[in-house]
Amino acid sequence: MIFRQLFEAETSTYSYLLGCERTRRALLIDPVASEIAEYLELLNSHHLKLIYTLETHVHADHITGAGLLREQIGSKSVVHRDAGAMCADLLVTDGVSLQVGDLDLQVRHTPGHTSGCVSYVMADRVFTGDALLIDGSGRTDFQQGDAGQLFDSITYKLFTLPADTLVYPGHDYQGNTVSTIKQEIAKNARMGKGRTRDEFIAIMQDLKLAYPKFIDKALPANQSCGLVTAEK
Amino acid sequence: MIFRQLFEAETSTYSYLLGCERTRRALLIDPVASEIAEYLELLNSHHLKLIYTLETHVHADHITGAGLLREQIGSKSVVHRDAGAMCADLLVTDGVSLQVGDLDLQVRHTPGHTSGCVSYVMADRVFTGDALLIDGSGRTDFQQGDAGQLFDSITYKLFTLPADTLVYPGHDYQGNTVSTIKQEIAKNARMGKGRTRDEFIAIMQDLKLAYPKFIDKALPANQSCGLVTAEK
Repeated sequence: MIFRQLFEAETSTYSYLLGCERTRRALLIDPVASEIAEYLELLNSHHLKLIYTLETHVHADHITGAGLLREQIGSKSVVHRDAGAMCADLLVTDGVSLQVGDLDLQVRHTPGHTSGCVSYVMADRVFTGDALLIDGSGRTDFQQGDAGQLFDSITYKLFTLPADTLVYPGHDYQGNTVSTIKQEIAKNARMGKGRTRDEFIAIMQDLKLAYPKFIDKALPANQSCGLVTAEK
Repeated sequence: MIFRQLFEAETSTYSYLLGCERTRRALLIDPVASEIAEYLELLNSHHLKLIYTLETHVHADHITGAGLLREQIGSKSVVHRDAGAMCADLLVTDGVSLQVGDLDLQVRHTPGHTSGCVSYVMADRVFTGDALLIDGSGRTDFQQGDAGQLFDSITYKLFTLPADTLVYPGHDYQGNTVSTIKQEIAKNARMGKGRTRDEFIAIMQDLKLAYPKFIDKALPANQSCGLVTAEK
Protein backbone atom coordinates (compact mmCIF):
# COMPACT_ATOMS: atom_id res chain seq x y z
CA MET A 1 0.00 0.00 0.00
CA ILE A 2 1.12 3.53 -0.77
CA PHE A 3 0.42 5.73 2.25
CA ARG A 4 1.05 9.43 2.88
CA GLN A 5 -0.01 11.56 5.81
CA LEU A 6 -0.28 15.14 4.53
CA PHE A 7 -0.41 18.25 6.70
CA GLU A 8 -2.00 21.64 6.01
CA ALA A 9 -0.35 24.00 8.46
CA GLU A 10 -2.80 26.91 8.61
CA THR A 11 -5.57 24.79 10.13
CA SER A 12 -3.37 21.88 11.34
CA THR A 13 -5.37 19.51 9.16
CA TYR A 14 -4.27 16.00 8.25
CA SER A 15 -5.25 14.49 4.92
CA TYR A 16 -4.37 10.97 3.86
CA LEU A 17 -3.46 9.50 0.50
CA LEU A 18 -3.90 5.75 0.17
CA GLY A 19 -2.99 3.91 -3.01
CA CYS A 20 -3.17 0.30 -4.17
CA GLU A 21 0.17 -0.80 -5.59
CA ARG A 22 -1.33 -3.50 -7.82
CA THR A 23 -4.13 -1.54 -9.48
CA ARG A 24 -2.71 2.01 -9.03
CA ARG A 25 -6.09 3.14 -7.71
CA ALA A 26 -6.15 5.62 -4.87
CA LEU A 27 -8.31 7.54 -2.45
CA LEU A 28 -7.83 10.72 -0.46
CA ILE A 29 -9.32 11.30 2.98
CA ASP A 30 -10.22 14.92 3.85
CA PRO A 31 -8.41 16.75 1.03
CA VAL A 32 -7.92 20.51 1.55
CA ALA A 33 -8.68 22.88 -1.33
CA SER A 34 -5.44 24.87 -0.96
CA GLU A 35 -3.32 21.71 -1.32
CA ILE A 36 -4.69 20.46 -4.64
CA ALA A 37 -1.42 21.02 -6.52
CA GLU A 38 0.46 18.82 -4.07
CA TYR A 39 -2.12 16.03 -4.38
CA LEU A 40 -2.01 16.10 -8.17
CA GLU A 41 1.77 15.93 -8.14
CA LEU A 42 1.75 13.03 -5.68
CA LEU A 43 -0.84 11.13 -7.72
CA ASN A 44 1.15 11.75 -10.90
CA SER A 45 4.51 10.80 -9.50
CA HIS A 46 3.09 7.54 -8.12
CA HIS A 47 1.05 6.85 -11.28
CA LEU A 48 -2.15 6.69 -9.24
CA LYS A 49 -5.72 7.21 -10.39
CA LEU A 50 -7.85 8.92 -7.74
CA ILE A 51 -11.20 7.11 -7.45
CA TYR A 52 -12.73 8.68 -4.33
CA THR A 53 -12.23 11.62 -2.01
CA LEU A 54 -13.72 10.73 1.38
CA GLU A 55 -14.83 13.30 3.92
CA THR A 56 -14.91 12.32 7.57
CA HIS A 57 -17.46 15.15 7.97
CA VAL A 58 -18.44 18.61 6.76
CA HIS A 59 -15.53 20.67 8.05
CA ALA A 60 -15.88 24.01 9.81
CA ASP A 61 -12.25 25.07 9.68
CA HIS A 62 -11.03 24.53 6.12
CA ILE A 63 -12.47 24.10 2.64
CA THR A 64 -12.53 20.64 1.13
CA GLY A 65 -10.71 19.93 -2.12
CA ALA A 66 -13.31 17.33 -3.15
CA GLY A 67 -15.11 19.53 -5.68
CA LEU A 68 -11.91 20.80 -7.31
CA LEU A 69 -10.48 17.29 -7.62
CA ARG A 70 -13.76 16.08 -9.13
CA GLU A 71 -13.62 18.90 -11.66
CA GLN A 72 -9.98 18.32 -12.54
CA ILE A 73 -9.54 14.54 -12.49
CA GLY A 74 -13.03 13.05 -12.11
CA SER A 75 -12.72 11.62 -8.60
CA LYS A 76 -16.01 11.08 -6.78
CA SER A 77 -16.87 12.64 -3.44
CA VAL A 78 -17.95 10.43 -0.52
CA VAL A 79 -19.67 11.65 2.64
CA HIS A 80 -22.15 10.37 5.24
CA ARG A 81 -25.82 10.60 4.25
CA ASP A 82 -26.58 12.81 7.27
CA ALA A 83 -23.72 15.26 6.73
CA GLY A 84 -25.85 17.73 4.77
CA ALA A 85 -23.58 17.74 1.71
CA MET A 86 -25.91 16.67 -1.07
CA CYS A 87 -23.25 17.80 -3.56
CA ALA A 88 -21.49 14.50 -2.90
CA ASP A 89 -21.52 11.65 -5.41
CA LEU A 90 -21.77 8.80 -2.96
CA LEU A 91 -23.64 8.98 0.35
CA VAL A 92 -22.61 6.33 2.87
CA THR A 93 -23.91 4.99 6.17
CA ASP A 94 -22.60 2.92 9.06
CA GLY A 95 -21.18 -0.47 8.12
CA VAL A 96 -20.82 0.12 4.39
CA SER A 97 -17.65 -1.19 2.77
CA LEU A 98 -15.94 0.57 -0.11
CA GLN A 99 -13.21 -1.05 -2.16
CA VAL A 100 -10.49 0.74 -4.14
CA GLY A 101 -8.22 -1.76 -5.85
CA ASP A 102 -7.05 -4.03 -3.03
CA LEU A 103 -7.85 -1.42 -0.38
CA ASP A 104 -10.95 -2.15 1.64
CA LEU A 105 -12.51 0.56 3.79
CA GLN A 106 -15.33 0.22 6.26
CA VAL A 107 -17.47 3.17 7.29
CA ARG A 108 -18.20 3.64 11.00
CA HIS A 109 -20.72 6.33 11.88
CA THR A 110 -19.14 8.26 14.77
CA PRO A 111 -21.39 11.29 15.38
CA GLY A 112 -20.98 13.78 18.19
CA HIS A 113 -18.61 16.39 16.76
CA THR A 114 -21.17 16.66 13.93
CA SER A 115 -24.14 14.41 13.25
CA GLY A 116 -22.64 13.20 9.96
CA CYS A 117 -19.17 12.27 11.23
CA VAL A 118 -17.68 8.97 10.16
CA SER A 119 -14.45 7.14 10.75
CA TYR A 120 -12.93 4.96 8.05
CA VAL A 121 -11.41 1.64 9.13
CA MET A 122 -8.83 0.03 6.85
CA ALA A 123 -6.89 -3.07 7.85
CA ASP A 124 -4.61 -2.05 10.74
CA ARG A 125 -5.67 1.62 10.95
CA VAL A 126 -8.59 3.96 11.47
CA PHE A 127 -9.05 7.51 10.21
CA THR A 128 -11.03 9.21 12.94
CA GLY A 129 -11.57 12.71 11.53
CA ASP A 130 -12.59 15.03 14.36
CA ALA A 131 -14.20 12.36 16.53
CA LEU A 132 -11.14 10.96 18.30
CA LEU A 133 -8.00 13.10 18.28
CA ILE A 134 -4.66 12.13 19.78
CA ASP A 135 -5.01 12.86 23.49
CA GLY A 136 -8.23 14.76 22.73
CA SER A 137 -11.48 14.83 20.82
CA GLY A 138 -13.38 17.06 18.45
CA ARG A 139 -15.32 19.91 20.05
CA THR A 140 -19.07 19.50 20.47
CA ASP A 141 -20.35 23.05 20.80
CA PHE A 142 -21.56 23.71 17.23
CA GLN A 143 -22.79 21.96 14.05
CA GLN A 144 -25.11 19.50 15.88
CA GLY A 145 -22.35 18.69 18.34
CA ASP A 146 -23.36 16.44 21.24
CA ALA A 147 -20.84 15.42 23.89
CA GLY A 148 -22.79 12.37 25.10
CA GLN A 149 -23.14 11.12 21.54
CA LEU A 150 -19.42 11.63 20.90
CA PHE A 151 -18.58 9.69 24.06
CA ASP A 152 -20.75 6.81 22.83
CA SER A 153 -19.22 6.92 19.34
CA ILE A 154 -15.67 6.78 20.65
CA THR A 155 -16.49 4.18 23.30
CA TYR A 156 -18.51 1.78 21.16
CA LYS A 157 -17.30 2.40 17.61
CA LEU A 158 -13.60 3.17 18.09
CA PHE A 159 -12.36 1.85 21.44
CA THR A 160 -13.79 -1.55 20.45
CA LEU A 161 -11.29 -1.84 17.57
CA PRO A 162 -8.24 -4.09 18.11
CA ALA A 163 -5.88 -2.46 20.64
CA ASP A 164 -3.01 -2.06 18.18
CA THR A 165 -5.14 -0.31 15.55
CA LEU A 166 -3.31 2.82 14.38
CA VAL A 167 -5.24 6.04 15.00
CA TYR A 168 -4.88 8.73 12.32
CA PRO A 169 -6.81 11.86 13.30
CA GLY A 170 -8.14 14.76 11.23
CA HIS A 171 -6.06 17.31 13.12
CA ASP A 172 -3.22 17.64 15.54
CA TYR A 173 -2.10 20.88 17.09
CA GLN A 174 0.92 19.54 19.02
CA GLY A 175 2.91 17.79 16.33
CA ASN A 176 1.61 14.29 17.08
CA THR A 177 1.13 12.17 13.98
CA VAL A 178 -0.24 8.80 15.03
CA SER A 179 -1.44 6.88 18.06
CA THR A 180 -3.13 3.56 18.79
CA ILE A 181 -6.50 2.61 20.24
CA LYS A 182 -4.62 1.11 23.22
CA GLN A 183 -2.80 4.39 23.87
CA GLU A 184 -5.96 6.50 23.63
CA ILE A 185 -7.87 4.21 26.00
CA ALA A 186 -4.98 4.47 28.47
CA LYS A 187 -3.94 8.10 28.10
CA ASN A 188 -6.49 10.32 26.30
CA ALA A 189 -7.04 13.29 28.59
CA ARG A 190 -10.75 13.56 27.83
CA MET A 191 -11.81 10.05 26.92
CA GLY A 192 -9.19 7.70 28.36
CA LYS A 193 -8.18 6.66 31.86
CA GLY A 194 -11.64 5.27 32.54
CA ARG A 195 -13.46 8.57 32.19
CA THR A 196 -17.21 8.25 32.56
CA ARG A 197 -19.78 9.67 30.16
CA ASP A 198 -20.79 12.34 32.66
CA GLU A 199 -17.15 13.36 33.24
CA PHE A 200 -16.64 13.69 29.49
CA ILE A 201 -19.77 15.80 29.08
CA ALA A 202 -18.65 18.06 31.93
CA ILE A 203 -15.16 18.45 30.41
CA MET A 204 -16.66 19.39 27.04
CA GLN A 205 -19.06 21.88 28.61
CA ASP A 206 -16.22 23.61 30.43
CA LEU A 207 -13.98 24.12 27.38
CA LYS A 208 -15.31 27.60 26.56
CA LEU A 209 -13.74 27.63 23.09
CA ALA A 210 -13.71 30.63 20.78
CA TYR A 211 -16.14 30.67 17.86
CA PRO A 212 -14.30 28.96 14.95
CA LYS A 213 -12.86 31.69 12.75
CA PHE A 214 -13.52 30.02 9.38
CA ILE A 215 -16.87 28.41 10.11
CA ASP A 216 -19.14 30.94 8.40
CA LYS A 217 -17.17 30.57 5.20
CA ALA A 218 -16.23 26.90 5.43
CA LEU A 219 -19.61 25.33 6.27
CA PRO A 220 -21.63 26.56 3.28
CA ALA A 221 -18.64 25.98 0.99
CA ASN A 222 -18.23 22.40 2.19
CA GLN A 223 -21.92 21.66 1.82
CA SER A 224 -21.20 22.35 -1.86
CA CYS A 225 -18.07 20.15 -1.92
CA GLY A 226 -15.89 23.24 -1.57
CA LEU A 227 -16.91 24.82 -4.85
CA VAL A 228 -19.04 27.71 -3.60
CA THR A 229 -17.84 30.11 -0.96
CA ALA A 230 -20.28 32.11 1.09
CA GLU A 231 -20.56 35.88 0.85
CA LYS A 232 -18.51 37.60 3.51
CA MET B 1 -16.66 -14.16 -13.11
CA ILE B 2 -19.60 -16.09 -11.74
CA PHE B 3 -22.78 -14.92 -13.48
CA ARG B 4 -26.40 -16.02 -13.13
CA GLN B 5 -29.51 -14.52 -14.68
CA LEU B 6 -32.41 -15.34 -12.35
CA PHE B 7 -36.09 -15.13 -13.25
CA GLU B 8 -39.12 -14.48 -11.04
CA ALA B 9 -42.07 -15.72 -13.08
CA GLU B 10 -45.02 -13.92 -11.45
CA THR B 11 -43.76 -10.48 -12.44
CA SER B 12 -41.32 -11.60 -15.18
CA THR B 13 -38.48 -9.96 -13.28
CA TYR B 14 -34.81 -10.61 -13.96
CA SER B 15 -32.30 -10.45 -11.14
CA TYR B 16 -28.57 -10.93 -11.60
CA LEU B 17 -25.95 -12.54 -9.40
CA LEU B 18 -22.35 -11.53 -10.11
CA GLY B 19 -19.45 -13.02 -8.21
CA CYS B 20 -15.69 -12.53 -8.21
CA GLU B 21 -13.92 -15.88 -8.47
CA ARG B 22 -10.73 -14.66 -6.82
CA THR B 23 -12.16 -12.92 -3.75
CA ARG B 24 -15.53 -14.77 -3.57
CA ARG B 25 -17.29 -11.43 -3.18
CA ALA B 26 -20.62 -10.97 -4.90
CA LEU B 27 -23.41 -8.58 -5.69
CA LEU B 28 -27.06 -9.00 -6.63
CA ILE B 29 -28.91 -6.66 -8.97
CA ASP B 30 -32.66 -6.23 -8.30
CA PRO B 31 -33.26 -9.13 -5.89
CA VAL B 32 -36.91 -10.13 -5.37
CA ALA B 33 -38.16 -10.76 -1.82
CA SER B 34 -39.91 -14.03 -2.68
CA GLU B 35 -36.69 -15.53 -4.08
CA ILE B 36 -34.44 -15.04 -1.06
CA ALA B 37 -34.07 -18.77 -0.37
CA GLU B 38 -32.76 -19.35 -3.89
CA TYR B 39 -30.22 -16.52 -3.56
CA LEU B 40 -28.94 -17.81 -0.23
CA GLU B 41 -28.53 -21.31 -1.65
CA LEU B 42 -26.68 -19.97 -4.70
CA LEU B 43 -24.38 -17.83 -2.58
CA ASN B 44 -23.69 -20.77 -0.28
CA SER B 45 -23.06 -23.31 -3.00
CA HIS B 46 -20.60 -20.95 -4.71
CA HIS B 47 -19.00 -19.89 -1.41
CA LEU B 48 -19.79 -16.25 -2.12
CA LYS B 49 -20.12 -13.37 0.31
CA LEU B 50 -22.80 -10.88 -0.75
CA ILE B 51 -21.46 -7.34 -0.38
CA TYR B 52 -24.13 -5.25 -2.11
CA THR B 53 -27.66 -5.54 -3.43
CA LEU B 54 -28.13 -2.95 -6.16
CA GLU B 55 -31.50 -1.60 -7.23
CA THR B 56 -31.88 -0.22 -10.72
CA HIS B 57 -34.85 1.75 -9.31
CA VAL B 58 -37.71 1.64 -6.82
CA HIS B 59 -39.89 -1.05 -8.35
CA ALA B 60 -43.64 -0.81 -8.75
CA ASP B 61 -44.34 -4.45 -9.59
CA HIS B 62 -42.49 -6.57 -7.05
CA ILE B 63 -40.95 -6.23 -3.60
CA THR B 64 -37.19 -5.98 -3.32
CA GLY B 65 -35.25 -8.55 -1.32
CA ALA B 66 -32.65 -5.96 -0.28
CA GLY B 67 -33.93 -5.47 3.25
CA LEU B 68 -34.32 -9.18 3.97
CA LEU B 69 -30.83 -9.97 2.65
CA ARG B 70 -29.41 -7.14 4.76
CA GLU B 71 -31.11 -8.59 7.83
CA GLN B 72 -30.02 -12.16 7.14
CA ILE B 73 -26.48 -11.83 5.76
CA GLY B 74 -25.48 -8.19 6.21
CA SER B 75 -25.36 -7.12 2.56
CA LYS B 76 -25.73 -3.40 1.95
CA SER B 77 -28.42 -1.85 -0.21
CA VAL B 78 -27.47 0.48 -3.08
CA VAL B 79 -29.85 2.83 -4.89
CA HIS B 80 -29.75 6.18 -6.69
CA ARG B 81 -29.89 9.25 -4.45
CA ASP B 82 -33.06 10.48 -6.18
CA ALA B 83 -34.96 7.19 -5.94
CA GLY B 84 -36.70 8.10 -2.71
CA ALA B 85 -35.49 5.04 -0.80
CA MET B 86 -33.65 6.54 2.14
CA CYS B 87 -33.64 3.09 3.74
CA ALA B 88 -30.68 2.28 1.52
CA ASP B 89 -27.13 2.07 2.88
CA LEU B 90 -25.35 3.59 -0.09
CA LEU B 91 -26.83 6.32 -2.29
CA VAL B 92 -25.18 6.64 -5.69
CA THR B 93 -25.18 9.12 -8.57
CA ASP B 94 -24.18 9.18 -12.22
CA GLY B 95 -20.59 8.21 -12.94
CA VAL B 96 -19.80 6.61 -9.58
CA SER B 97 -17.78 3.38 -9.67
CA LEU B 98 -18.28 0.59 -7.20
CA GLN B 99 -15.86 -2.30 -6.85
CA VAL B 100 -16.63 -5.78 -5.51
CA GLY B 101 -13.53 -7.95 -5.58
CA ASP B 102 -12.32 -7.75 -9.18
CA LEU B 103 -15.75 -6.68 -10.44
CA ASP B 104 -16.00 -3.03 -11.34
CA LEU B 105 -19.40 -1.41 -11.86
CA GLN B 106 -20.16 2.04 -13.14
CA VAL B 107 -23.44 3.80 -12.39
CA ARG B 108 -25.23 5.54 -15.26
CA HIS B 109 -28.22 7.64 -14.32
CA THR B 110 -30.93 6.71 -16.82
CA PRO B 111 -34.13 8.43 -15.64
CA GLY B 112 -37.43 8.46 -17.50
CA HIS B 113 -39.19 5.31 -16.27
CA THR B 114 -38.62 6.76 -12.79
CA SER B 115 -36.48 9.75 -11.82
CA GLY B 116 -34.09 7.57 -9.82
CA CYS B 117 -33.45 4.89 -12.47
CA VAL B 118 -29.87 3.79 -13.04
CA SER B 119 -28.14 1.30 -15.29
CA TYR B 120 -25.04 -0.55 -14.11
CA VAL B 121 -22.22 -1.01 -16.63
CA MET B 122 -19.74 -3.81 -16.02
CA ALA B 123 -17.05 -4.73 -18.54
CA ASP B 124 -18.87 -6.15 -21.59
CA ARG B 125 -22.43 -5.79 -20.27
CA VAL B 126 -25.02 -3.34 -18.98
CA PHE B 127 -27.91 -3.96 -16.60
CA THR B 128 -30.60 -1.60 -17.79
CA GLY B 129 -33.40 -2.18 -15.28
CA ASP B 130 -36.65 -0.79 -16.70
CA ALA B 131 -35.04 1.89 -18.86
CA LEU B 132 -34.15 -0.16 -21.95
CA LEU B 133 -35.92 -3.50 -22.38
CA ILE B 134 -35.31 -5.96 -25.20
CA ASP B 135 -37.33 -4.63 -28.12
CA GLY B 136 -39.06 -2.22 -25.73
CA SER B 137 -38.68 0.20 -22.87
CA GLY B 138 -40.05 0.83 -19.40
CA ARG B 139 -43.41 2.61 -19.25
CA THR B 140 -43.43 6.31 -18.42
CA ASP B 141 -46.94 6.92 -17.17
CA PHE B 142 -46.39 6.83 -13.37
CA GLN B 143 -43.71 7.32 -10.69
CA GLN B 144 -42.23 10.51 -12.24
CA GLY B 145 -42.16 8.85 -15.65
CA ASP B 146 -41.16 11.11 -18.53
CA ALA B 147 -40.97 9.78 -22.08
CA GLY B 148 -38.68 12.53 -23.39
CA GLN B 149 -36.29 12.01 -20.51
CA LEU B 150 -36.27 8.24 -21.10
CA PHE B 151 -35.52 8.80 -24.80
CA ASP B 152 -32.55 10.96 -23.82
CA SER B 153 -31.30 8.45 -21.24
CA ILE B 154 -31.38 5.57 -23.70
CA THR B 155 -29.95 7.66 -26.56
CA TYR B 156 -27.09 9.33 -24.70
CA LYS B 157 -26.34 6.98 -21.80
CA LEU B 158 -26.97 3.53 -23.29
CA PHE B 159 -26.84 3.67 -27.09
CA THR B 160 -23.40 5.31 -26.75
CA LEU B 161 -21.95 2.16 -25.19
CA PRO B 162 -19.82 -0.11 -27.44
CA ALA B 163 -22.07 -1.83 -30.00
CA ASP B 164 -21.36 -5.35 -28.73
CA THR B 165 -22.23 -4.50 -25.12
CA LEU B 166 -24.61 -7.15 -23.77
CA VAL B 167 -27.96 -5.76 -22.63
CA TYR B 168 -29.50 -7.44 -19.58
CA PRO B 169 -32.91 -5.91 -18.79
CA GLY B 170 -34.99 -5.86 -15.60
CA HIS B 171 -37.90 -7.69 -17.23
CA ASP B 172 -38.84 -9.64 -20.26
CA TYR B 173 -42.35 -10.81 -21.03
CA GLN B 174 -41.57 -12.80 -24.21
CA GLY B 175 -38.83 -15.16 -23.09
CA ASN B 176 -35.92 -13.05 -24.36
CA THR B 177 -32.89 -13.17 -22.12
CA VAL B 178 -30.20 -10.93 -23.58
CA SER B 179 -29.57 -8.51 -26.43
CA THR B 180 -26.84 -6.09 -27.50
CA ILE B 181 -26.70 -2.33 -27.88
CA LYS B 182 -26.24 -2.89 -31.63
CA GLN B 183 -29.40 -5.00 -31.84
CA GLU B 184 -31.50 -2.51 -29.87
CA ILE B 185 -30.34 0.42 -31.98
CA ALA B 186 -31.27 -1.55 -35.09
CA LYS B 187 -34.45 -3.32 -34.02
CA ASN B 188 -36.05 -1.91 -30.85
CA ALA B 189 -39.68 -1.25 -31.77
CA ARG B 190 -39.91 1.92 -29.68
CA MET B 191 -36.38 3.30 -29.60
CA GLY B 192 -34.51 1.74 -32.52
CA LYS B 193 -34.74 2.06 -36.28
CA GLY B 194 -33.90 5.77 -36.09
CA ARG B 195 -37.00 6.73 -34.12
CA THR B 196 -37.09 10.41 -33.22
CA ARG B 197 -37.73 11.80 -29.75
CA ASP B 198 -41.20 13.00 -30.79
CA GLU B 199 -42.10 9.62 -32.26
CA PHE B 200 -41.03 7.90 -29.04
CA ILE B 201 -43.07 10.30 -26.91
CA ALA B 202 -46.13 9.72 -29.14
CA ILE B 203 -45.70 5.93 -28.91
CA MET B 204 -45.48 6.11 -25.12
CA GLN B 205 -48.52 8.37 -24.87
CA ASP B 206 -50.59 5.94 -26.95
CA LEU B 207 -49.83 2.82 -24.91
CA LYS B 208 -52.88 3.14 -22.64
CA LEU B 209 -51.57 0.61 -20.12
CA ALA B 210 -53.54 -0.70 -17.17
CA TYR B 211 -52.72 0.65 -13.71
CA PRO B 212 -49.97 -1.63 -12.31
CA LYS B 213 -51.65 -4.17 -10.07
CA PHE B 214 -48.94 -4.30 -7.36
CA ILE B 215 -47.93 -0.63 -7.30
CA ASP B 216 -49.85 0.48 -4.21
CA LYS B 217 -48.24 -2.27 -2.20
CA ALA B 218 -44.82 -2.38 -3.87
CA LEU B 219 -43.89 1.31 -3.89
CA PRO B 220 -44.11 2.04 -0.16
CA ALA B 221 -42.55 -1.33 0.62
CA ASN B 222 -39.62 -0.69 -1.69
CA GLN B 223 -39.06 2.78 -0.29
CA SER B 224 -38.35 0.85 2.93
CA CYS B 225 -36.05 -1.67 1.19
CA GLY B 226 -38.92 -4.19 1.06
CA LEU B 227 -39.29 -4.55 4.81
CA VAL B 228 -42.60 -2.73 5.33
CA THR B 229 -45.68 -3.49 3.29
CA ALA B 230 -48.44 -0.96 2.97
CA GLU B 231 -51.90 -1.46 4.42
CA LYS B 232 -54.31 -2.89 1.88
